[in-house]
Amino acid sequence: MRNGIAGPLDYATSEGAVKMNDQVYTLGIDMGGTKILAAVINGEGQILSRAKNKTRAELGQEAVVERIVETANEALATAQLDPGQIECLGIGAPGPLNPASGVILEAPNLKWKNVPLKSILEDKLGIESHLCNDVNAGAWGEYKRGAAEGTRSCVGVFVGTGIGGGVVIGGKLWEGANHIAGEIGHMCIDPKGPVCGCGRRGCMEAFSSRTAMTREVREALKGDKKARKQLGDEGVQIRSKQFKLAFESGDKVFVKVIKNGAKQLGIGLGSVANLLNPECFVLGGGLVEALGKPYLDLVVEAFRRQAFESAQTGVRIVEAALGDDAGVIGAALLARQARAGLEVAASGV
Amino acid sequence: MRNGIAGPLDYATSEGAVKMNDQVYTLGIDMGGTKILAAVINGEGQILSRAKNKTRAELGQEAVVERIVETANEALATAQLDPGQIECLGIGAPGPLNPASGVILEAPNLKWKNVPLKSILEDKLGIESHLCNDVNAGAWGEYKRGAAEGTRSCVGVFVGTGIGGGVVIGGKLWEGANHIAGEIGHMCIDPKGPVCGCGRRGCMEAFSSRTAMTREVREALKGDKKARKQLGDEGVQIRSKQFKLAFESGDKVFVKVIKNGAKQLGIGLGSVANLLNPECFVLGGGLVEALGKPYLDLVVEAFRRQAFESAQTGVRIVEAALGDDAGVIGAALLARQARAGLEVAASGV
Repeated sequence: MRNGIAGPLDYATSEGAVKMNDQVYTLGIDMGGTKILAAVINGEGQILSRAKNKTRAELGQEAVVERIVETANEALATAQLDPGQIECLGIGAPGPLNPASGVILEAPNLKWKNVPLKSILEDKLGIESHLCNDVNAGAWGEYKRGAAEGTRSCVGVFVGTGIGGGVVIGGKLWEGANHIAGEIGHMCIDPKGPVCGCGRRGCMEAFSSRTAMTREVREALKGDKKARKQLGDEGVQIRSKQFKLAFESGDKVFVKVIKNGAKQLGIGLGSVANLLNPECFVLGGGLVEALGKPYLDLVVEAFRRQAFESAQTGVRIVEAALGDDAGVIGAALLARQARAGLEVAASGV
Repeated sequence: MRNGIAGPLDYATSEGAVKMNDQVYTLGIDMGGTKILAAVINGEGQILSRAKNKTRAELGQEAVVERIVETANEALATAQLDPGQIECLGIGAPGPLNPASGVILEAPNLKWKNVPLKSILEDKLGIESHLCNDVNAGAWGEYKRGAAEGTRSCVGVFVGTGIGGGVVIGGKLWEGANHIAGEIGHMCIDPKGPVCGCGRRGCMEAFSSRTAMTREVREALKGDKKARKQLGDEGVQIRSKQFKLAFESGDKVFVKVIKNGAKQLGIGLGSVANLLNPECFVLGGGLVEALGKPYLDLVVEAFRRQAFESAQTGVRIVEAALGDDAGVIGAALLARQARAGLEVAASGV
């Protein structure tokens, strides 16, 4: 509870939906490379019901669309609502995409190109639909109903297999001239650093993502047959939970890799603080959730050294509060805002 | 001329002021460490008159304030206007400062601390006054009447003895939660890079400012007695004009240093593009003015490698158009906006 008002975490379980007095319902969907989440949100941004299915991108676009529709319908059924009772739908998806036209331009994880998801969902569900970037949706959720609630500016950073971000400035999500803003993971931290998945050198993601840290751990342990066996096949990412256990047990290799990842992330956030001076940084994603406060403290330590004193006075660096709910809440709230004609993003170039 | 309308560069000379039909006049002042500029601006953002004096910070705060007042009065006299005919005054000053309270918190160049410049000027001139950061004023001038006119987002970068910036997002100047946004020169480009004037390592300013490039040239020529003599005393900065001449004549040492400075700047701007995806980058300041297009091309080359393709499609990197006028025009227009109660910046933390 926050200020005595039910917060977004005080949701009804998916078994028994809560019916509130307000009659505004929105559907939020978060489509990722591995799972699809859907939730019905009420006027207060509270979750009334949830549904979850695997994406199974390998089945192809049509099958995935059917799975999105199915997941949406499951959430509606749990909330005992028909599509006709839903004001609008917001779906967060991996980009690049165009929120204005509702088209996913390219989603490498899904192998999608130029998919008009907005109009497809409107046809299939009969609900006005709005498309947004999945990470932006997460940042917006945390800004409106999560860890950055009450601020007017925040930068959300989500650390997992990659690093994505979302930028809220003066109370508005900034999507960028080409709707590509927020790619904080591809700020260069060290031009001579390791090669990033994007092909560039020394991006934040090349140091601090789970992918990068997996690479570092494997590299450090390549002479240790036993450890290599425990880590499994070369291509397999080390899970966040395994990072957590090794970090807590003080494993030297893991601790060193985690410390370096946190440090480079903190330097990057310090740079962002000098450029943008937001009120708040929200850190989320699987790795941050697993490693928790000790990890955050390391990030903050490096941040404090890089950011100007005047860019950190009163500025908070906090853990995300909503977990997986951030994306569905954010997508739903962005859709409602777009429907109301409120400016969310910039006009295009 | 721009679209047939008189642009900000089609000003009257300070000898003969132009009187337009519109009767809104604003005074813009740009107070730097070495010079004070003042200009009367009409409703179209055109300059009607100009005045300029040395700051002479060594004379102390009271003397400098008198010099500001004098410069303002000179600009008014040339425009044949009384203070009573001026709607409001905008003054850009080095920070950190608080535009809301009108207090300069600290100006190391001037050795000022906690100077309530807004109320001092209101007392002395009898004109409603608004204080803003000098670099933000320059960026806002270029955004409203200069190289970024017609866009909805831009990042202004001014390269001289230091590197400062200003961020315009969704048609608004973003001053930051503590009014410190825009310190693009203190984004970390390489954590193992040279020590910056701010004490940190590898800031953009530590690579690409005139100060940094002077240091690099001196370092490269330290064994060359003749060259050292030509460069003068250790403490003396190499002038932008000297960089220009050496660059154009193909001097190996200078060319190498300039190329590296441009490259690091381009990498930094590429990172900013991935984070913010603005429509336009405006590059100004003494060094950029002196080195011109060949230098800009080097910056763009490095930028193109760092920025995502989708963060550079249609995105322009252009030279500033207004020169020294950007600051006075921007300060005047920001003052007018503040007077009209239009939101410029964020609420504080």
